[in-house]
Amino acid sequence: MTDPQELADRVRDGDLRIHELEAHADADVACEARRLFVEQETDTELGTIGDYSFPAEQAEPNIENMIGAAQVPMGVVGPVAVAGGAIDGEHYLPLATTEGALLASVNRGLSVIATAGGADARVTKNGMTRAPVFRVDGVAEAAETVDWVSENIDSLREAAESTTSHGELLGVEPYVVGDSVYLRFAYDTKDAMGMNMATIATEAACEIVERETPASLVALSGNLCSDKKPAAINAVEGRGRSVTADVVVPGAVVADRLHTTPEAIVEANTRKNLVGSAKAGSLGFNAHAANVVGAAFLATGQDEAQVVEGANAITTMDTREGAGEDSTTDLYASVSLASLEVGTVGGGTKLPTQAEALEVLGLRGGGDPAGTNADALAEIIAVGALAGELSLLAALASNHLASAHEDLGR
Amino acid sequence: MTDPQELADRVRDGDLRIHELEAHADADVACEARRLFVEQETDTELGTIGDYSFPAEQAEPNIENMIGAAQVPMGVVGPVAVAGGAIDGEHYLPLATTEGALLASVNRGLSVIATAGGADARVTKNGMTRAPVFRVDGVAEAAETVDWVSENIDSLREAAESTTSHGELLGVEPYVVGDSVYLRFAYDTKDAMGMNMATIATEAACEIVERETPASLVALSGNLCSDKKPAAINAVEGRGRSVTADVVVPGAVVADRLHTTPEAIVEANTRKNLVGSAKAGSLGFNAHAANVVGAAFLATGQDEAQVVEGANAITTMDTREGAGEDSTTDLYASVSLASLEVGTVGGGTKLPTQAEALEVLGLRGGGDPAGTNADALAEIIAVGALAGELSLLAALASNHLASAHEDLGR
Amino acid sequence: MTDPQELADRVRDGDLRIHELEAHADADVACEARRLFVEQETDTELGTIGDYSFPAEQAEPNIENMIGAAQVPMGVVGPVAVAGGAIDGEHYLPLATTEGALLASVNRGLSVIATAGGADARVTKNGMTRAPVFRVDGVAEAAETVDWVSENIDSLREAAESTTSHGELLGVEPYVVGDSVYLRFAYDTKDAMGMNMATIATEAACEIVERETPASLVALSGNLCSDKKPAAINAVEGRGRSVTADVVVPGAVVADRLHTTPEAIVEANTRKNLVGSAKAGSLGFNAHAANVVGAAFLATGQDEAQVVEGANAITTMDTREGAGEDSTTDLYASVSLASLEVGTVGGGTKLPTQAEALEVLGLRGGGDPAGTNADALAEIIAVGALAGELSLLAALASNHLASAHEDLGR
Amino acid sequence: MTDPQELADRVRDGDLRIHELEAHADADVACEARRLFVEQETDTELGTIGDYSFPAEQAEPNIENMIGAAQVPMGVVGPVAVAGGAIDGEHYLPLATTEGALLASVNRGLSVIATAGGADARVTKNGMTRAPVFRVDGVAEAAETVDWVSENIDSLREAAESTTSHGELLGVEPYVVGDSVYLRFAYDTKDAMGMNMATIATEAACEIVERETPASLVALSGNLCSDKKPAAINAVEGRGRSVTADVVVPGAVVADRLHTTPEAIVEANTRKNLVGSAKAGSLGFNAHAANVVGAAFLATGQDEAQVVEGANAITTMDTREGAGEDSTTDLYASVSLASLEVGTVGGGTKLPTQAEALEVLGLRGGGDPAGTNADALAEIIAVGALAGELSLLAALASNHLASAHEDLGR
Repeated sequence: MTDPQELADRVRDGDLRIHELEAHADADVACEARRLFVEQETDTELGTIGDYSFPAEQAEPNIENMIGAAQVPMGVVGPVAVAGGAIDGEHYLPLATTEGALLASVNRGLSVIATAGGADARVTKNGMTRAPVFRVDGVAEAAETVDWVSENIDSLREAAESTTSHGELLGVEPYVVGDSVYLRFAYDTKDAMGMNMATIATEAACEIVERETPASLVALSGNLCSDKKPAAINAVEGRGRSVTADVVVPGAVVADRLHTTPEAIVEANTRKNLVGSAKAGSLGFNAHAANVVGAAFLATGQDEAQVVEGANAITTMDTREGAGEDSTTDLYASVSLASLEVGTVGGGTKLPTQAEALEVLGLRGGGDPAGTNADALAEIIAVGALAGELSLLAALASNHLASAHEDLGR
Repeated sequence: MTDPQELADRVRDGDLRIHELEAHADADVACEARRLFVEQETDTELGTIGDYSFPAEQAEPNIENMIGAAQVPMGVVGPVAVAGGAIDGEHYLPLATTEGALLASVNRGLSVIATAGGADARVTKNGMTRAPVFRVDGVAEAAETVDWVSENIDSLREAAESTTSHGELLGVEPYVVGDSVYLRFAYDTKDAMGMNMATIATEAACEIVERETPASLVALSGNLCSDKKPAAINAVEGRGRSVTADVVVPGAVVADRLHTTPEAIVEANTRKNLVGSAKAGSLGFNAHAANVVGAAFLATGQDEAQVVEGANAITTMDTREGAGEDSTTDLYASVSLASLEVGTVGGGTKLPTQAEALEVLGLRGGGDPAGTNADALAEIIAVGALAGELSLLAALASNHLASAHEDLGR
Repeated sequence: MTDPQELADRVRDGDLRIHELEAHADADVACEARRLFVEQETDTELGTIGDYSFPAEQAEPNIENMIGAAQVPMGVVGPVAVAGGAIDGEHYLPLATTEGALLASVNRGLSVIATAGGADARVTKNGMTRAPVFRVDGVAEAAETVDWVSENIDSLREAAESTTSHGELLGVEPYVVGDSVYLRFAYDTKDAMGMNMATIATEAACEIVERETPASLVALSGNLCSDKKPAAINAVEGRGRSVTADVVVPGAVVADRLHTTPEAIVEANTRKNLVGSAKAGSLGFNAHAANVVGAAFLATGQDEAQVVEGANAITTMDTREGAGEDSTTDLYASVSLASLEVGTVGGGTKLPTQAEALEVLGLRGGGDPAGTNADALAEIIAVGALAGELSLLAALASNHLASAHEDLGR
Repeated sequence: MTDPQELADRVRDGDLRIHELEAHADADVACEARRLFVEQETDTELGTIGDYSFPAEQAEPNIENMIGAAQVPMGVVGPVAVAGGAIDGEHYLPLATTEGALLASVNRGLSVIATAGGADARVTKNGMTRAPVFRVDGVAEAAETVDWVSENIDSLREAAESTTSHGELLGVEPYVVGDSVYLRFAYDTKDAMGMNMATIATEAACEIVERETPASLVALSGNLCSDKKPAAINAVEGRGRSVTADVVVPGAVVADRLHTTPEAIVEANTRKNLVGSAKAGSLGFNAHAANVVGAAFLATGQDEAQVVEGANAITTMDTREGAGEDSTTDLYASVSLASLEVGTVGGGTKLPTQAEALEVLGLRGGGDPAGTNADALAEIIAVGALAGELSLLAALASNHLASAHEDLGR
């Protein structure tokens, strides 16, 4: 058996390069050797990083140059009471974060939602996109290319779908800028987040485009996808799942549990989330949806950089005439996430702690029918985000009320 | 000693609430009890989540309702060769991710950068912001409030800075929309990411504003801050650190190591990152800066939801006349991150694996002078992002070249 | 016959209201009476405003409370050499503006374009949009409504098209935000700009939606149209015509006529129009396309407030290997206007000076086939905008070269 | 005296170029000759275009290649009841447009405002900007340049202000993207819109920057200005005047005059102007502010292409507890125009019809103190825009109410 220290020494001596260790030892030994080398080079002790709880081999599809694992505290919130298109009932939602008070806040919101009878949730649009950019000679060729694409969508579908057992091409939207043509391919990638599936399928379709039109591929991604960038195209047209969660909270519950009024929450939401975001030139009209999205992504093995698109969310709060006899005013609260990119298969979902977290939700692996597990995950996260919005806005509103009361007391 | 199973049973029986466990046992036992409860409720085994490597007590400032930890594979890239304003030399950068090929790609870029003599990096702006929103009667009072603020900045500074030993108020920018007044406070928070510091200091300043003007506080955050949302105000004016890294790569290195040409990389960057992002209505004119930001944030204990602002980056690529006698064309490459929010103290930086990762960089804790560690971390991450941009764009460009060659071969 | 002064006195005495004059005299007398009243109230002489050259009656569909006309200087540029999808050959383009040097600059650009053999131009997308907003009970009803719409597009088309002899419904795109559902209807409105046509047709379709779904109409325009506002949805998806014009200018022409180089123009375009606009959080990646759009709109009777959408334009400049033996570098220049809203019938196109201006272009009234006149107008304006971009960027680049030369001379 | 037809023939014969006519005849004859030439080339009659009412010579600073004038119908709305920072009382506002019903709608809104006791208005920020872009070697030089600028603002002010008798440099904001440095200069240009003043002053300052730093000027405008483009930087930070107008309309007035309720107007505003614009990725959170801005710009000689920035407006509507004994609910309405670029001297303000329109407002020429006339014009336009918003939203809301009533009647 290979000795990690010996391997580390060979790296130090230039005999081996740092990324070549896996060729000389099994994954765990290579990982240890690399960690030893780094410890010596940087005069550090990385014992906790090295104390991970899974075979390093299992992480090979996810990382290179492994030295161990980051451990991020994980908790649960819930029960999440939801009536969704793909999931119903009460569930515990695991969240991993380093931001103190986040889970407590979300939990408070979830408790209010449960008291109010649970939240509704629906995926209203679904499509993972990839948009290659092509070079043409000029707009005359661009127009020719766009025409060809609109008339030959079936050929493109055939090529694209030949590369995948699950994915379906939903459509191709062309965009022309000078001598660049962008084709935004959208796919139903079922329970996978689907970025890789979409890329491979699109590559196959691009070959047809190059063969049949004057267009020449410059880059498989031309940023009209748009992956991991804040972009209006995602906020407007969606990417991954577009999902909304909403709830009507009785005025009495707002008073008892959130210590404020529907009117005060609506005011805070309008001035902060709507008007404030408008003035900020924002694509995110919410308080902190990214906090819940990020923590759920981390817990369940989603792509942490896609929190960017997950922040494209609009929160609305409105008063409603109370249904009861006492004619109270109730609170309607919603959050609409335009581009939540989630999967329950592939990516980081297979890693042990992440797979366990998905099991807590009952959503590990493919759904039946395909796509329903990812839909359900999107809906659960949306309800979590709604709880976070409710709780934070209520806190802002009640602080204000509190100080208003103090003012009156003076 | 308390028995975890017994506590779990009490939660199941409704005798205890799930967040009350810490009141009845130490942090680790409470964590185990909660995990047991969740396992029984959801019929799961959460052994790996439970196999964390630090005293649960240590995570108390970071999480509630803890059941364990998410373990995310961590690797290193480097050496990162940098000539920065706050850091020089060669360093290893820890990255935690589940996205396969990311570290390999960044490492390739770093190797090219090192061969080219290293990258320059500079923090060109620094300021953590918090922007409360106030209600006034109308624009007449709004104008009065804005005038008062501009004339009494010293009073606001005194109040704000009384709450912090390190933070300095840099300025207050007012914005008026109807009967709402937003005041964007910007602080130098030194080595802390500073969101909490900025919030507390701003709260103190708000009391003065409420006392001295007709304005009444509605919410401590009015979304012109703007935290964890994609917002032009951050992309334009910055938040946290605005940091740029750049490098000139000799044409020969581009050819040998990236198997393409400066011209092909420039074309891919222009059509994808500039024109494509323009057409997408984007605030992110880059390829995948968020990948590196996200992985570095996770490894070093930054706020994972602030990856959103970290994606506000512009990548430029340009040809330059070669310096050598052979008159080759070289490649100028840069990435400018407008709003990178980092710290080396506070938040998740104290957690064991995260603290170890900061030690690998030599940046754990406060810098000397204060602020230089966070500056250095920003600069290192910027160089990592630059490496990722270089590598991905070169891959896109060389694929294109490859297929062009195939075309010629037909 | 009625005496204008007498009518003016009656307005002054409160006997008549200012907008009631047309009920008591013909249009010109009413106009004169109103002008007299305003002159007396404001102690002014409005003789030039009153010296308009058309029967006031003719302007009744365009204005209320008329007192005369604004006279804006009009000139011509050209010949505009264009090879378009709907127009070919050389044309004079009338422009009305108060900005000195604009026509001279555009004319210089057009002369360069003509020398280069003319510009190509194509309308690559066409659709006037109207997007009503509906209230639903919550996301469950929203999803139900969206489903109904996608399955009943034929009913909506029938209702919409029953209101118009020319317009065709191209599609309906739904967007859900909480308890609001937006339906973006897109129409081919042929030679009309089509806002009114689209509104009336959409109103008819809304009745069906209200009758058949739980949705209740709140406003016929829900701002996802989006009319006369800067909005990414228009810049990304287009509104009215999406039109591109481009040209390859030989390097020798750039040198002789623009006194600079393709490389210098490309640099100015990249740093200013691409990177500068990116950093500004802009939807307009051009130098001054709105100048040409605005001046052409004013001359030809388009809606002056739709200059807003006309500014959603991307200018690209790139070097190309010269075609000739001398292996010079040529310049590729393009401008792509995403949302140019033009018509040759209706609106202000019937007013005398505006109709004459359209006749100069040979584009007054409906085209054959329908829609081709408006297509042609869009293409001509795009070439004008391209000329303006070329000329201004060359001026910026040559100033730079000039001062560089001075530097060398020091 | 020169014969126009003879000159036209010389142009036709290639003996003269179309822009050279002014060298051979006075302005009016040259204009006629050019019009004759165009008529003959295009087989048209341009009699109305030729029937303008001012000496062509007077338009020489405003147009080249003149053939006459566009005549756009002008009307008045009012009285505009305003209590502003720079103007008080009741005024008539001239508007030129071809959009039927616009003046009627604005007038209805103004009448409501007057009944409500008039609107407040305030300019809350003022600064015309110009932002040149410089090339540096890389970020190290960029940081050096930014530092120099921040330490030498007095030198820049001296150079800039040496070029102008009125203008004052308010500040310089630096932005770094890779090897590009943008400096956004902001000026108080008093009663001039100030684009030219700002450009000339900035050019002088740029010479200092080039002399004292490594930075080399690429273009006097680097699009962070940002002129005539939709850009977040203007919507957030302002350009020209940032101006707000607001009013509280008693509930009884809303009912009697607008035939709807404050609640219905608030709902329409929230769903359309706030949430709808948010979903559209818009910078314009209003209904049709650009209509009033455009029509007022045209009437008073402003730059028609700057309607683009004029559309960066946010409209808010809110209910307020009624002040009276009857405890009705009142309506608070506001519009905040972030970047309204207006002047009362220079540009098109000197042309006869435009100067007359300014006289109607009592705002022709420079104010006393300097700047107050342009402030007043901004405030008046803001009140006009507010009236347009009120009227259109009320119309939308009352249509809805009307159909709701019909529903009830079924």
